[in-house]
Amino acid sequence: MSDNFERRDEREPGHEPPGGPGRGPAGGPDGGREGARDAETSAAEAAGRNDIYSDDGSIRQDFLTAVGAAIADRDVLFLRSEVGALHVSELGDLLEAINTAQRQELVRLLGDDFDFAALTEVDEAIRLEIADAMPNAKIAEALGELESDDAVYILEDLEEEDQLEILAQLPFTERIRLRRALDYPEDTAGRRMQTEFVAVPPFWTVGQTIDYMRDEEELPGSFAQIFVVDPTFKLVGSVNLDRILRTKRMVRIEEIMDDPRSPITAEMDQEEAAQIFEQYDLLSAAVVDDNKRLVGVLTIDDVVDVINEEAEEDIKRLGGVGDEELSDRVITTVRSRFTWLLINLATAILASAVIALFDATISEMVALAVLMPIVASMGGNAGTQTMTVTVRALATRDIDIYNAGRVIRREAAVGLINGVLFAVIIGVVAALWFSNPGLGGIIAAAMVINMLAAALAGILLPLLLDKIGADPAIASAVFVTTVTDVVGFFAFLGLAGWWLSSLA
Amino acid sequence: MSDNFERRDEREPGHEPPGGPGRGPAGGPDGGREGARDAETSAAEAAGRNDIYSDDGSIRQDFLTAVGAAIADRDVLFLRSEVGALHVSELGDLLEAINTAQRQELVRLLGDDFDFAALTEVDEAIRLEIADAMPNAKIAEALGELESDDAVYILEDLEEEDQLEILAQLPFTERIRLRRALDYPEDTAGRRMQTEFVAVPPFWTVGQTIDYMRDEEELPGSFAQIFVVDPTFKLVGSVNLDRILRTKRMVRIEEIMDDPRSPITAEMDQEEAAQIFEQYDLLSAAVVDDNKRLVGVLTIDDVVDVINEEAEEDIKRLGGVGDEELSDRVITTVRSRFTWLLINLATAILASAVIALFDATISEMVALAVLMPIVASMGGNAGTQTMTVTVRALATRDIDIYNAGRVIRREAAVGLINGVLFAVIIGVVAALWFSNPGLGGIIAAAMVINMLAAALAGILLPLLLDKIGADPAIASAVFVTTVTDVVGFFAFLGLAGWWLSSLA
Repeated sequence: MSDNFERRDEREPGHEPPGGPGRGPAGGPDGGREGARDAETSAAEAAGRNDIYSDDGSIRQDFLTAVGAAIADRDVLFLRSEVGALHVSELGDLLEAINTAQRQELVRLLGDDFDFAALTEVDEAIRLEIADAMPNAKIAEALGELESDDAVYILEDLEEEDQLEILAQLPFTERIRLRRALDYPEDTAGRRMQTEFVAVPPFWTVGQTIDYMRDEEELPGSFAQIFVVDPTFKLVGSVNLDRILRTKRMVRIEEIMDDPRSPITAEMDQEEAAQIFEQYDLLSAAVVDDNKRLVGVLTIDDVVDVINEEAEEDIKRLGGVGDEELSDRVITTVRSRFTWLLINLATAILASAVIALFDATISEMVALAVLMPIVASMGGNAGTQTMTVTVRALATRDIDIYNAGRVIRREAAVGLINGVLFAVIIGVVAALWFSNPGLGGIIAAAMVINMLAAALAGILLPLLLDKIGADPAIASAVFVTTVTDVVGFFAFLGLAGWWLSSLA
Repeated sequence: MSDNFERRDEREPGHEPPGGPGRGPAGGPDGGREGARDAETSAAEAAGRNDIYSDDGSIRQDFLTAVGAAIADRDVLFLRSEVGALHVSELGDLLEAINTAQRQELVRLLGDDFDFAALTEVDEAIRLEIADAMPNAKIAEALGELESDDAVYILEDLEEEDQLEILAQLPFTERIRLRRALDYPEDTAGRRMQTEFVAVPPFWTVGQTIDYMRDEEELPGSFAQIFVVDPTFKLVGSVNLDRILRTKRMVRIEEIMDDPRSPITAEMDQEEAAQIFEQYDLLSAAVVDDNKRLVGVLTIDDVVDVINEEAEEDIKRLGGVGDEELSDRVITTVRSRFTWLLINLATAILASAVIALFDATISEMVALAVLMPIVASMGGNAGTQTMTVTVRALATRDIDIYNAGRVIRREAAVGLINGVLFAVIIGVVAALWFSNPGLGGIIAAAMVINMLAAALAGILLPLLLDKIGADPAIASAVFVTTVTDVVGFFAFLGLAGWWLSSLA
């Protein structure tokens, strides 16, 4: 965020801009639409771009009712003016709030007024549901209207054959463009990039560039920087728009361009690209092929989606669920969770086997069966805490070979200290509960051992998984709790067995 | 991402830009620096903006060594040219990779060449450590150079008295500006906003606006849109820079401006503001006070930080850790985790109490003690799966009053189906293990009951916590596992007790 330019606060008295008529009658591109809406009924009022949501962030009931009624009555006029006026993301939320029948009817009634980009804002299940209900010709026509990255986002989920049929019906340049993006593997910058951008030669002047943008009708929908390329279309630099606006017309682009910092290659993993955006606070960045030729541009709004997806992935993996969506069918969800539960069952049986080793000890003193889950549970939670911090630190690259040693010692210390603290607490509790000081001593000792084991497992297992190239988020949880269960039961029951036999 | 403009692919043959000298000798603002670096030694080469990182994302050892040596030899020349050339985020990573002594020495040696903005890129502990080692006068001087949002970010963590002393040493307008931001509560848009922006009256023409930006020396460091205000400084609209560049000089700003969509108020929670950015794909947005007067601008790079923080918060809370950082002292971490573990201890003891109810049953058949953890553990995991999905859906607002019912029925179904599947598996395993079919039937029945309970607890508890205004992420985990432990032990041991007594 820092920079070498002076800056100013527009509110300094001296700089107050001269007065004026304020908001003009024209009122910008949305003026007409606003006007149209002002004339609507109160129910329709709910369709205002920003007031279709209630305070809890869900779509207002009265608006849903109005839309539902309009769909039932085939009130195309209302739908066109109200639903057609929504921002794509709002249209997406609306599609998710109504039922399947209403969805398909709504899309049908809106016809060309249905902004296909809304499909990029809904769950995959709903996206496919809508797409499957449309003829491929219609889809192709709609995709032609979209930015290439949105088109690709919708295309990539469709059946292979539908993809080909749709691509075949697109104009040449559009088809080539989408093909190029689709050829890059999923989750790469090439898949996410937009193939529309403005590129100029380095010797152009600021004036030429501005005139070009004024006269050129076919510019990208919106852009924050333009790119500078040589005759072979190799990327030689980029210029942010504000730089162009603050520079005199006669200055040459090459004099104000920034050299391409940390170029993003089309094959680069989208997560890596996102990290570059975050590190250098980029609004957009050029995507180049193996020959350093400019092939597209990655924009921050796509990167924000990536960041959210990655965070979502970590959260779900830590929780033992795959990338399921709320709209998935029950059977899909059952299957996706089954594997994880099966692995957990195996580890749970392993833990039980450890207990089985000491069944004689338990039958000698049932209190052990009552207390043993406490040791295991405390270890499991302490281990989860350490593991969560470690997995997160690995994801944000806050942990590396330079501080790993320090972090491990730190976690061990934390585990030991908390272990001692809770050993004292549970020791006293157990001693009083079963009026048996010896038992208190045994569980206290077991607690210290297991809490230390938990800390070590919580930090070492994710580091190990990361080192061997596995995703620490997905497998750590099960391994860590296995360690804490086994160590917990073994330490507690083992010490108890030794203690009881020593009494005898 | 969708829009109403036509777009073009610069790579269409007809549009290939004319050839040119490519990268000019001037080479933009970084040219000089590049040149300087090209002259350096190979070790120094490592200081290249993009190659100080090794493949695993950590800073290259040879660069760290070179810097360490330079600090030791007080080689100011090397440090100025190499470390001074780094991007603030790279400087931040470097500061985190070296030790305390080196850090303070590095900052001292760099003097005015130390970009204070780097402090916004490091952990709070390190930020304070560096700040505390500097005289407030020096800090004030450095803050004056920063964008207001970076300055506030650094100031807010300092001691009250230091804050006041530093503010007192800042020039008037700068002081007022930072005070205004600091007056807004933490985690609000007002705290995050940048108070430098460009605002023009609606009646200005595009030409006037461009000329103004060309002549005005004191513009914000970088910006993606300008704002339109009336004489009372009320926000009447905004214009993206690309819109200005593609519009003829004589057009009036009010004709091309967008009306302020979903205005962000200074008191708005930063998370809410972030959601608006995500929904409408904004690059920057005006922040207004209660009187709709423009007070600042929120930029996407700050919003990205917010998004990451919020995701991080959810992950850590689900893992039972507060917002601790790797650089926290051991005692701080111990304290922050103690509470959570203490709550878990209480619930674990509760579960044990349930077991204690059946000690007679257990002493009658020790196999029960061996098997009971399996039922509890499976329930705990199934519950965690459902809870994770629910908490995430609440965070992303994918779940609301309209689909809550459907989601609950869905989770119940998933729980029941998986419950039956695992009941069969564990039933057979137990029957064979202890060659006791009856025992297999008992654990199977208990498994179905607990898996269903887990599903319901996993979805209902977060929804309930959210409804009463508590953070579902922070408390759900402990409640859910308590339910699954208690129900698991009670169902299994209870059924077993009834079964054994019925045999007698």
